[in-house]
Amino acid sequence: MPTDSNLPIGVFDSGLGGLTVLRHLSKRFANEDFIYLGDTARIPYGSKSPRTIQKYLAQNLAFFTRMPVKAVVVACNSASTQVSLVNSTVPIYDVITPGALRASITSKNSRIGVVATRATVMSECYPKEIHKLKPGVQVFQQACPLLVPLVEEGWDDDPITNLIVYRYVSPLLTANIDTLILGCTHYPILKNTFAKVLGARVQTVDSAESIGDLIERDFQLHKLPVKEAGTGGIIRLFATDISDTFETLAKRILGPATIVQLELAEI
Amino acid sequence: MPTDSNLPIGVFDSGLGGLTVLRHLSKRFANEDFIYLGDTARIPYGSKSPRTIQKYLAQNLAFFTRMPVKAVVVACNSASTQVSLVNSTVPIYDVITPGALRASITSKNSRIGVVATRATVMSECYPKEIHKLKPGVQVFQQACPLLVPLVEEGWDDDPITNLIVYRYVSPLLTANIDTLILGCTHYPILKNTFAKVLGARVQTVDSAESIGDLIERDFQLHKLPVKEAGTGGIIRLFATDISDTFETLAKRILGPATIVQLELAEI
Repeated sequence: MPTDSNLPIGVFDSGLGGLTVLRHLSKRFANEDFIYLGDTARIPYGSKSPRTIQKYLAQNLAFFTRMPVKAVVVACNSASTQVSLVNSTVPIYDVITPGALRASITSKNSRIGVVATRATVMSECYPKEIHKLKPGVQVFQQACPLLVPLVEEGWDDDPITNLIVYRYVSPLLTANIDTLILGCTHYPILKNTFAKVLGARVQTVDSAESIGDLIERDFQLHKLPVKEAGTGGIIRLFATDISDTFETLAKRILGPATIVQLELAEI
Repeated sequence: MPTDSNLPIGVFDSGLGGLTVLRHLSKRFANEDFIYLGDTARIPYGSKSPRTIQKYLAQNLAFFTRMPVKAVVVACNSASTQVSLVNSTVPIYDVITPGALRASITSKNSRIGVVATRATVMSECYPKEIHKLKPGVQVFQQACPLLVPLVEEGWDDDPITNLIVYRYVSPLLTANIDTLILGCTHYPILKNTFAKVLGARVQTVDSAESIGDLIERDFQLHKLPVKEAGTGGIIRLFATDISDTFETLAKRILGPATIVQLELAEI
């Protein structure tokens, strides 16, 4: 179907973690427009069942038919586990496929770690995707349910957070991984903490750059139409619940100058 | 309106914390039947806006018109902040009023601390209610957003949890409180940790016993009809999302023998 190249790109997350993906995409494709939707009224997804996550994803994708877009980036790993099970009239990019691809290329010793929410770990999406690309790789997963609340509490540079990350990551270090997938879009906010705990030997892979690579490839292959040059990018931010912490965290992630609008979405 | 004394008592919470209230009530009023509803598909409430919490509370109370009860205990402090703003055909007990009453009686030095979710703290419900009862009391509040995820992660007897509770409670100890309201129904699960951090000088007040006192008074005053003696209590458990962690935590709080049914509720 012909798609209007001037339509924005939709970015969806259960909350605010997906803003790390939006930040990367909006810088990398500065001429494109973006519409961000955070389902903050029902965050977190990572502790909920596949059935509930699938229902929420479908409802949120319906928002992007009312606010037309040329593609939707599901910038939430827990929601990405359900992408293959919901219908969409526009192309959908999940964050798991490109993360798995980049990790497979990065790892030299074929031992890859994954830190993610419980829902993402239970889905086995990363091991399945990595094994499709490189059957011999060993994948070690660790669910980290406390990291999203720690980020949302603003404790991202904190000795207690270092302790918790260390506890989660220790078994993966013992397993001698050389690559760690940050399998939740909140986790790049803890990049410095991960760097301290992991040391120089382990490379991290985050979703933002990986999904950017995939979109750039699709622009080049004319699978996704590039916006006509001109006006520069417009970003609109929607959330299903707006609290004080939303604005604080959104400004911290995106920088205050980037926020053009902050609107309530009824899902 | 005449109420059927044999109807169960409804107990509602955003998740599983309210099971600490159910445990107390079902032991104290062992002949009564109970229906518990946990809105686990949308947990937590404590980080969300008053508007969203009010909408969710109204939707959950509607469940208790389909599953008739003679009263509803809103065993969630964040939801209790919105009780006065929603309609109900049966009596509703919130957890804030009895907690404030018990703390006012317990405190000797008129310096009361409150630990709660961000939504409960922002609502100012506890200070308002305590000042109605005892105008001269000083109330010191502390939002503790990480405690619910720590309980749900099962880290309730853990050095990291001790550190986090200590950080939250320190300003209240400096303020020389002699009574601390555990203003979230998850927190009694951390009672041992609070005891360690607070020492012997500070008494804690939890919702379960306070709400039990109020219900016992209403039974005695014939405001709430007592179930006819006979069969003993039946407990039915409903949740809007059922995941593996629900069952584990429910069994830990209630004891495996108590769980009669575990059912999915469509809200």
